[in-house]
This record gives sequence, C-alpha cells and structure tokens, in this order.
Amino acid sequence: MSGTPVIQHVAIIGLGLLGGSIGLAIAKHAPGIATTGYDTDPATREKARERELVGTVLDSAAEAVAAADLVILCVPVGAMGFAAEAICDALPAGAIISDVGSSKQSVADALKAALPDHCIIPAHPVAGTEQSGPDAGFAELFEHRWCILTPADDAPTEAVDALSRFWTGLGSNVELMGAEHHDLVLAVTSHIPHLIAYTIVGTASDLEDVTRSEVIKYSAGGFRDFTRIAASDPTMWRDVFLTNKDAVLEMLGRFTEDLTALQRAIRRGDGDALHDLFTKTRAIRRSIIEQGQDDARPDFGRSDHSGDH
Amino acid sequence: MSGTPVIQHVAIIGLGLLGGSIGLAIAKHAPGIATTGYDTDPATREKARERELVGTVLDSAAEAVAAADLVILCVPVGAMGFAAEAICDALPAGAIISDVGSSKQSVADALKAALPDHCIIPAHPVAGTEQSGPDAGFAELFEHRWCILTPADDAPTEAVDALSRFWTGLGSNVELMGAEHHDLVLAVTSHIPHLIAYTIVGTASDLEDVTRSEVIKYSAGGFRDFTRIAASDPTMWRDVFLTNKDAVLEMLGRFTEDLTALQRAIRRGDGDALHDLFTKTRAIRRSIIEQGQDDARPDFGRSDHSGDH
Repeated sequence: MSGTPVIQHVAIIGLGLLGGSIGLAIAKHAPGIATTGYDTDPATREKARERELVGTVLDSAAEAVAAADLVILCVPVGAMGFAAEAICDALPAGAIISDVGSSKQSVADALKAALPDHCIIPAHPVAGTEQSGPDAGFAELFEHRWCILTPADDAPTEAVDALSRFWTGLGSNVELMGAEHHDLVLAVTSHIPHLIAYTIVGTASDLEDVTRSEVIKYSAGGFRDFTRIAASDPTMWRDVFLTNKDAVLEMLGRFTEDLTALQRAIRRGDGDALHDLFTKTRAIRRSIIEQGQDDARPDFGRSDHSGDH
Repeated sequence: MSGTPVIQHVAIIGLGLLGGSIGLAIAKHAPGIATTGYDTDPATREKARERELVGTVLDSAAEAVAAADLVILCVPVGAMGFAAEAICDALPAGAIISDVGSSKQSVADALKAALPDHCIIPAHPVAGTEQSGPDAGFAELFEHRWCILTPADDAPTEAVDALSRFWTGLGSNVELMGAEHHDLVLAVTSHIPHLIAYTIVGTASDLEDVTRSEVIKYSAGGFRDFTRIAASDPTMWRDVFLTNKDAVLEMLGRFTEDLTALQRAIRRGDGDALHDLFTKTRAIRRSIIEQGQDDARPDFGRSDHSGDH
C-alpha cells in the first residue's frame, strides 16, 4: 500500500442495526462514498433495499465486496470468521477489512486466520440501541459516540488513519487501544451491565410469590430501565460473552465481591456504608452528562414525564 | 368518622421531589384543594415558596397540618416516625395520615407507634426520577403511574376510598395490597435494581486497570443506564434498604443464584443457555411498553439519538 488510501467505496456485510446505520450515516455525512451491502437473510436484504440502507444491496457477500476499499463486517462476533471466509476470494488486494464487534481480541484472531494477507483494522463503535434488524438503523447513531480502533502493532499507519477519518466523518470520536485492554474496558462499561440486566429480568420473570403482572405494573420503580438493555439482540450478546469470557468473568468477580459487601452492610444494618457508596456513585453520572455521553434530562427525558417532550 | 370524607386540605411534610410533585399535581388536577407544606430545611422552604410547590409554606410541621384533612409525609422512610411525632399534637382528629415511602411495613409500624389514635393509610406512588430536592418536582410525575395503598385490615373503608380518589385525581392508577406483599414486590421492581445499579457503578469507580475516564467515555455501551438510577437520593435509598431488609435479602439471594448460573454458563461456553435466557427477557420489555409503563422509542427516546426529538 503506498500513500494514504482514500476510502471511496464501502462494503457492509450484515445489514442490521449497526450495518444499516453505517450505510445511512455515509449517505448523510459522506455521500461521495459508494456503498454496497449484503446480508445472509433474504428478508433483510429486501428490507435494506426498501429503506435504501446502502446504495446497492447484492445477493452475495463476494459481489458486495468486489469493488470495495473498505469492508465492514457487521455480524455477531461469533460469525466474523465465516463472514471473512465468504469474502476472501473476492476481496480487492488493497482493501481494509474492519468490523463493529463488541469484543476485539477474538475478532482480530478470527479475521487474521481467515484473511492472513489482508490489512485488518478491527473497530468497535460504542453505540447502539436495544433494537436490532434492518428496521432499526438510523444515520445519527454514531454522532458524539466513541469508536475504538484496535489495530495490531504492525498495522499500516495509513490504513489506520484512513479508517479513523472515516469514523470521524460519521460524527464519531476515535480512540486507539490494544484489543486486550478494549475487552477489559468494555467488560465493565457494556458487557457486565448487559449480563446483570439480563439476569435481573430473568429473576423477576421466574418468581412465584410475585406475579409477572405485578412486575410489569410496578416496573417504573427502576426495573423497567433494565428491561431495555435486556431486550437487546440475543445472538449478538451470546457471542459477546462467549468471546470475551476472561475479561467478563474477571469483572463479574469484582462485581459480586462488591455486591456481597453491600449485602452484608444491609444484613448488619450498616447505614453509613450504604450512604457512603450511594453518595460516591452520583459523581460518575455528573461526569457522563458533562462529557455529552447521556441526556441530562431527568429519567433520560422519557416522554411520559411531562407535556414538554 | 361518619360518611365519606371529602379531601379539601392537604398538608405535605417534606418538599422534595415527591412532596413538591404532589403539590404541583394538586394545583394542576385538583385546584380546589388547599395545600400547605413544611420542610425541615429552611432553604428548601424558601425554594418551595419561590416555585409555589404548595399554596402556603409554613415554618413548622404543626402549623402546616393544623387544618388538614389529609397529611402526606414525604420524608425518607427512616424519618417517618420523627415526622409523625412532630405533627402529633397539632393533627385534627379526623385527618387521614398517609405517606409516599418505598417500604411499607416499617412505615406502617412507625406511624402506628407515633399516632396510635389516628387513621393511617400508608401509600406508595411508584414514580420518581433520579433527581431530588425542591427543584425536581413536576405536576405530571404521577400520571399513568401506579399508586399502591397498603391499609391495615381495620382501616376505615371511607378513608381508603377518599385516598384512592385523591390519587386517581392526580392521574394515577390505584391498587390495594398488604404491606408485606408490597415490600416483596417492590424489592424486585425497585429496590434490587437500585442496589445492583449502585454496586456496578461503585465497582467501575474503583478499578485500577480501567480508568474512570475510560468508564465515562465508553459508558454508552450500557453502563450509563445504571448511572441514572445510581444518582438517586442517598438518604432515601439507605433508609429503603435498612427498612426492607428481609425482602431485599431474599430477592438478592435469588438474583445472585441466577447470576452464578449465568457465570457458570459463560465459563463452560454454554451458548444455548445464554441464548435461551436472552430471548426470554425480551417478552417482559414488550409487555411493559404495551401497558404504558415505558417509552417505546429506542433508547428511551434519548435526545442524542436523532434530530427528531
């Protein structure tokens, strides 16, 4: 590869929430870039054509990538290896291969194994909603969100720069870090929160002495917040936990230690320990809002709270 | 008490998020009802006068309740007994005493001990935001939310009816149940979710290998949802856990059992077990939205997601 590659044609493999949003974001922010796309599900391809998620929806992954200088794999992390194999023979030699997976070391390994001679720059835009599929994407998903690139040490600087500029162009902030560190950070900020949310929603569904109807009626006490996250795509999240096992188990261990300490404080009636923790945790919320990573309005500005919104 | 009492004057003790919202909701929905209020904090009383949270803010609890036929205690549940003692001598004989506390058996006991000769109907409007204090209240807080009354078996039917009508008038749906069952239900739908949120935010704050700055930057992966709940009022929540200890510990035990099972599935690489749970939990979200207990828009309709809202 000589000089800094300019990305003129992006192929998107997988046209769900993330893939669809990338296509729409390119159309909004960088309409000069051509886009092609493919999804293994014919119904998703049909919907993608209808919503014009990309310029051209092709009926095979090979056709979709044939003229691309950037290929973004937007499939569950457990399917990355298969997706890479499917495009292997059709890939232009100079194309950059990237992805949007939530765990990075395993994706890097899978892509390297399938495409040993290509330029691979794994990426993770930290953005999403609880919805999934070709109906769920929207052009603004990545605006003011961080996109983490985890290039290997020997990745060509020009390719990393080109991918950084691509994501910046869609409205993201870009950060580089090692895959292993990424997996630890995201275990805390994303994977464990999802695991906890899935668990409490599961626990509440299985109770005998509290009915499901009661759980639903009184969910505004806090529970409903967890149900949003626990409505996320099951296949995507299964794969995240299977592929980021070590970091997830490590962080889960720390969480359960802290929960046990709190349980003990409740059992012993140690109000000061509870009050101290509950005071400390307010500061992080303030920082998140100050740094534009959440809505400052009470209750996320949910529509049922006031006639104003 | 003879005949069905008509509530014409409500005294609100404690003018934070809940007390202030009740005052504003009465002004909006039932402007014929007179309102007086008191808060132990002079700055809160001043702010309450400025925002006109109630018709008249008095400088003592006794003055505030002197002419009331309904007194609503809107203080942390650990302070209910003190608040009841403070109004004891000034209470009109026929007044109904109620509250908004999140645990009900302990409040019923505390009120009964302080006011053995009065008509006590504990209540819990299942509504709130992460904000607190006299600036936080708004008139619509209770609309489409459930308010649970936990009258003792010997509570006068007319008083229960009057209080039900009062809450219905503010836009709430009203349900009656026993205090003990309430405490179990709310342990699941509110107390454990708060405890878990406080814990994970605390865990994330204390890490050494992941910086606080990283936690904040990548919080949109799910973590930020928990920080909202973990920004709730520390004193209120300390008291909830101290006063609903048994139900909280019981439900916490079930949650940690389920979490341990999930941890084992991850360690063993049991993708099917993960996928099954992650699929099951989607149904509850749908029901909550169908029953008007949450915003159907992706990501709660947060403002940063699209130009539309």
